[in-house]
Amino acid sequence: MQFTSEQRLDDGVLAREFTLGEIPGTLWTPGSAAPVPLVLMAHNNGLPKADSRLVARARYTAARGYAVATIDAAGCGDRPRSAAAEQIRAELRQAVQAGRPADELDELFESPVGPLVAQAVPEWQAALDALLRLPDVGGPVGDSGGWAALGIRLAVAEPRLVAAGFFAGGYVPRAQREEARLVTVPLLFLLQWDDQGNPRRRALDLFDAFGSKEKTLHANLGGHTGTPWFELEDGCRFLDRHLK
Amino acid sequence: MQFTSEQRLDDGVLAREFTLGEIPGTLWTPGSAAPVPLVLMAHNNGLPKADSRLVARARYTAARGYAVATIDAAGCGDRPRSAAAEQIRAELRQAVQAGRPADELDELFESPVGPLVAQAVPEWQAALDALLRLPDVGGPVGDSGGWAALGIRLAVAEPRLVAAGFFAGGYVPRAQREEARLVTVPLLFLLQWDDQGNPRRRALDLFDAFGSKEKTLHANLGGHTGTPWFELEDGCRFLDRHLK
Repeated sequence: MQFTSEQRLDDGVLAREFTLGEIPGTLWTPGSAAPVPLVLMAHNNGLPKADSRLVARARYTAARGYAVATIDAAGCGDRPRSAAAEQIRAELRQAVQAGRPADELDELFESPVGPLVAQAVPEWQAALDALLRLPDVGGPVGDSGGWAALGIRLAVAEPRLVAAGFFAGGYVPRAQREEARLVTVPLLFLLQWDDQGNPRRRALDLFDAFGSKEKTLHANLGGHTGTPWFELEDGCRFLDRHLK
Repeated sequence: MQFTSEQRLDDGVLAREFTLGEIPGTLWTPGSAAPVPLVLMAHNNGLPKADSRLVARARYTAARGYAVATIDAAGCGDRPRSAAAEQIRAELRQAVQAGRPADELDELFESPVGPLVAQAVPEWQAALDALLRLPDVGGPVGDSGGWAALGIRLAVAEPRLVAAGFFAGGYVPRAQREEARLVTVPLLFLLQWDDQGNPRRRALDLFDAFGSKEKTLHANLGGHTGTPWFELEDGCRFLDRHLK
């Protein structure tokens, strides 16, 4: 892991850009020197790590006393894009905007998103290995991400993850819907009740499927990007209960 | 309103028993002299106000800086019971324990619960009138009750109520299900996901029906009486946002 830049922010949070091989990432840590628990924060289905909503959540969580880390998925953010992948993205956007029926969209989403999740997992695990070697990053490790599909796969595959916060707002591939029952860590599931791009029934079924004995659903009105501000603190309270 | 006893508790909270005509009630207030916002806290479908779960919630909320008030519904707690009402209760208990089908139980619950709600509303409004005249009780007024049916009726009928927290765990009469869309105050709805006595689909449909632009659902595992402890503080944070 190589740090390529650092910036001390107003609230004392230190933001550091890093690379791990070809993977670009960002690490935010609070002002303190002592090692703090680590929170992985992936953005939904490959949105870039520089997205303002992710950055705002990461900074808030870091200021609350956590190390927060994110990486760009392959073909996303600053990483090289293939023409084929760009073509598929364009088709997906058109299909969504054209209001194609849900089952057609499912098939369109399944082929790019499934492999994106599968490819991201070893990259996140490598990042986790490297991050836990840093002096100011301790354990335990939690997830507070906007990418439920990746979160599910990681929660099943990565024993170091002890608590998971997922956002129900992007396509979850069949394989992850089927393995949701294998997720057993304490879980907080965030749902926008009137998210036009996200079938509510499927999100509620997914919540029902999770195998965790301790699981909580928070649903709010406000549309896909309208998660109320108070959920930031609710999310941190969940992390406090399990990582501190 | 006549106070009949008072007790100063360990956390500084003052607990006072009162009567308002034939209506017995309890008022909890924090240690401070300054007027604090008022929270009405009805227990589910006429459970007594002395029930330990209600008392615990009331004390926690009062210690957080609220005046909290409850009254016993007609025929409940210390109030006189009619033989006819006791007979109906016994039949209901038997029907639930015998595992009668949901639609049969609906009809059995509808006849006692509907009138219980209707009768309770003017009593709560009279209590509200009297409570707001006390020097240490100010506004605004919120509801954080375990009796959703009463809460819905009050939220529609009583303009002084500015925020409502309901627990989805008791029979809600048809009339209240139909007027849920008229509830427009900010709302927090608490659901036990695996509450055997409470059809989940109906609770989710009720949440969907509420007319409030700002509404939040918190669902947890744990069965009817297994609401996790952290929901106490979540409930107070909701009240803070709207009453303070």
